[in-house]
Amino acid sequence: MDTISDGRSAEVSGAENAARAIEILKPVLGERLATGQSIREQHSHDMSRLTPHLPDAVAFPQTEAEVLAIVNACAEHGVPVVPYGIGSSMEGHSIPVRGGISLDTREMNTILEIRPEDFIAVVQPGVTRKQLNNELRATGLMFSVDPGADATIGGMASTRGSGTTAVRYGTMRDNVMALRAVAGDGSVIKSGSQARKSSTGYDLTHLFVGAEGTLGVITELTVRLHPIPEAVSSAICAFETVRGAVEAVIATIQYGIPVARVEFMDEVAINAVNNYSKLGLKVAPTLFFEFHGTPAWVAEQAKVVEEITKEYGGSDFNWSADTDERNRLWQARHDSFFATKAIKPGWELYLGDICVPISKLAESIVAAREDIDNSPFTGQIIGHVGDGNYHTAYIIEPGNEEHLKIAEAMAERLVERALACGGTAAGEHGIGIEKLKFMRVEHGDGAVDAMKAIKRALDPKGIMNPGKMGDAG
Amino acid sequence: MDTISDGRSAEVSGAENAARAIEILKPVLGERLATGQSIREQHSHDMSRLTPHLPDAVAFPQTEAEVLAIVNACAEHGVPVVPYGIGSSMEGHSIPVRGGISLDTREMNTILEIRPEDFIAVVQPGVTRKQLNNELRATGLMFSVDPGADATIGGMASTRGSGTTAVRYGTMRDNVMALRAVAGDGSVIKSGSQARKSSTGYDLTHLFVGAEGTLGVITELTVRLHPIPEAVSSAICAFETVRGAVEAVIATIQYGIPVARVEFMDEVAINAVNNYSKLGLKVAPTLFFEFHGTPAWVAEQAKVVEEITKEYGGSDFNWSADTDERNRLWQARHDSFFATKAIKPGWELYLGDICVPISKLAESIVAAREDIDNSPFTGQIIGHVGDGNYHTAYIIEPGNEEHLKIAEAMAERLVERALACGGTAAGEHGIGIEKLKFMRVEHGDGAVDAMKAIKRALDPKGIMNPGKMGDAG
Repeated sequence: MDTISDGRSAEVSGAENAARAIEILKPVLGERLATGQSIREQHSHDMSRLTPHLPDAVAFPQTEAEVLAIVNACAEHGVPVVPYGIGSSMEGHSIPVRGGISLDTREMNTILEIRPEDFIAVVQPGVTRKQLNNELRATGLMFSVDPGADATIGGMASTRGSGTTAVRYGTMRDNVMALRAVAGDGSVIKSGSQARKSSTGYDLTHLFVGAEGTLGVITELTVRLHPIPEAVSSAICAFETVRGAVEAVIATIQYGIPVARVEFMDEVAINAVNNYSKLGLKVAPTLFFEFHGTPAWVAEQAKVVEEITKEYGGSDFNWSADTDERNRLWQARHDSFFATKAIKPGWELYLGDICVPISKLAESIVAAREDIDNSPFTGQIIGHVGDGNYHTAYIIEPGNEEHLKIAEAMAERLVERALACGGTAAGEHGIGIEKLKFMRVEHGDGAVDAMKAIKRALDPKGIMNPGKMGDAG
Repeated sequence: MDTISDGRSAEVSGAENAARAIEILKPVLGERLATGQSIREQHSHDMSRLTPHLPDAVAFPQTEAEVLAIVNACAEHGVPVVPYGIGSSMEGHSIPVRGGISLDTREMNTILEIRPEDFIAVVQPGVTRKQLNNELRATGLMFSVDPGADATIGGMASTRGSGTTAVRYGTMRDNVMALRAVAGDGSVIKSGSQARKSSTGYDLTHLFVGAEGTLGVITELTVRLHPIPEAVSSAICAFETVRGAVEAVIATIQYGIPVARVEFMDEVAINAVNNYSKLGLKVAPTLFFEFHGTPAWVAEQAKVVEEITKEYGGSDFNWSADTDERNRLWQARHDSFFATKAIKPGWELYLGDICVPISKLAESIVAAREDIDNSPFTGQIIGHVGDGNYHTAYIIEPGNEEHLKIAEAMAERLVERALACGGTAAGEHGIGIEKLKFMRVEHGDGAVDAMKAIKRALDPKGIMNPGKMGDAG
């Protein structure tokens, strides 16, 4: 630890140590250990605005044995190991803030086994969700978690990712049944089984899911699959108020309707897609529903939900079971990211991601909306409202320090309001770098110190994704 | 550790240490710290056949602060703390095998908050599931996990319990959203939030769920609630073969039918309830279904399932949505435990509990059945087959050492077959004492050593439920 106290000498000694680890690994990985400038630059950033940092090298292991060799070499010389999926993190998870080896899992992309009768697939961590779903097509099953990006399943597990379908099928927490990992101390951990439930042993699976690569490298995952529904139908519905829309969602879930997706877009977001995609949607708080089931059951679900929406000021409930019509209805939601970017071409989106108890969702969204209205920004709110999770997007000018400062203060207020009402600082984007400051506020000293004790137990040299969750905050 | 090497002197020094801790705790707990013989005897055993062991004292804390005082006093003097719910464990979890303080949570039985809109309840650990469901009745919501016994929610969480409804609503793993706990090192840990999802921090909630009281004492739980379904219907169906019954279950789930319960009983079990409850059920492998939903949807589910059962040799599909008729249909299943005990009055049931991937369930049950048929015992198999979880019950003579030896060997073979096909040594009854020997076989050295490292990190003095999972195996 002493060598880190002086930033500059740490960098120097860090580079020397990395060079030693690279020497050990060259014969193991050959050309799959890259030190060229451009490949290091590719692995210096993710999809966030956060400051990039170069790794000393990028490794592309193909097997667990190679991951183990990397971890052992880096442990020997105190070199950071930073797992990298496809770099679609929004929070800087894969930025190697202290250099070291960026461990890219893209060559660990084999689907090892699909067992339709057991509703499971066993995959290497670099398999992407679309790759798995393409392979699953013939089985009538699907991997349900959909964060938008075609992320790797290892990355989604490490960040406890979710997305639009979580309200029905759960997040990565619910869909990873078992895994293998190499911990920072070089132990190879196998956790969970292929049985649907078990009451044996500490739940190491859920410890690695969401650990953001700070305990070890996930080398294999057993994920849960779900039947592709026989019928899918969709509906959109405009509301007079945000509160009405959210209360309709609560009533729908209370009724026991297992909506497959229920997404919210506010007026700004609707206006943006109207302009971008030439749609004529009513500019109002809007809900997008998707129902899965048998043909009769999806029709019944939609009918019940239509009645509910009417009670809460919903109008123009537009329902369809036809695929093309469904796609048209959902187009606005799908186009939302680019539509928002198109409001001010060339400007950046400053994204927020919180989750609150659903009873607090209406007031939370209203407060977030007011904060945007009182700011110099155009901004929108969209959300996976069935879970109480929503995203803010402020449109800021690149390089404008004043904008950044205001946006940061707004993002802090957003999180503070969420925590004050029993919510969480990150619904699905994770802690990464900037949200480290909220860890003690959200979890308290006892929990954060316990996390650090667990980190030390499994990664005693602190080589796994250092400077992130587990050894800061 | 040295003092434990000599069994006798450890007992003596254990009693002295316990006396010191008791002295510290007397002014804190007053009469809620009991050392009488009869109360200690009550806390020396559970519902298993395992050898009882007396605690040195029994504490009945009412608050987290009192739990903390107990843990601190015991840590100071190296005295075991063994959490106790209602003592309904089947595997010896709450037996204080090394003496110490039995920490009974029955006075921590306050339902702290019910938030219907958020589908959550916040409870102290000594609240029982029936107590919570009685309180919930007016809200239209229910706590779904049903292990049979009216267990405490803290105990169910600690053992990662489940039961008949897990196939639809999940186990305790899925239904504990957040908790508070006092770890063995005296830190107070708050984990999770009231939001439905979160991607912040290591998942300490799932670390304590299933830890069997070996990391700390759970002092508060936030559990998930589900809407009481508008309509409930039931069906029973007899099959020509075990394989046919199990394949019908797989097909039902593959079809996406969200059965609320699906229970299997073999011929011996059916015969026993026919005799015990004067029923006239066909003596055959039988499935019991329960469907939840709207009236139209439960009718449709039953119709689809009836078609499926026919394909797999099912006959006499007997369906009803009427409450009395439903209860009559399920009576056989509810009476099963007592019906089996009544086969040989005064004899004991030696219970097994494994879970396998559903694709292996038919062959697993057939092998278990053959093992029983080749033994001197009458024995039966019943199961939560939607999860791949089933229980064997061998009827053995109390005190008959030969019986016990044969039963133990059969139970070992049952687990070995489960592990060989990717299953787990315990589906829902936990590890407790006798299944410790399977920990390394199931999880491997890397995982078990990681568990022990975590145990040392959170309970450095090893006072939490010692001799169980986490410091043995």
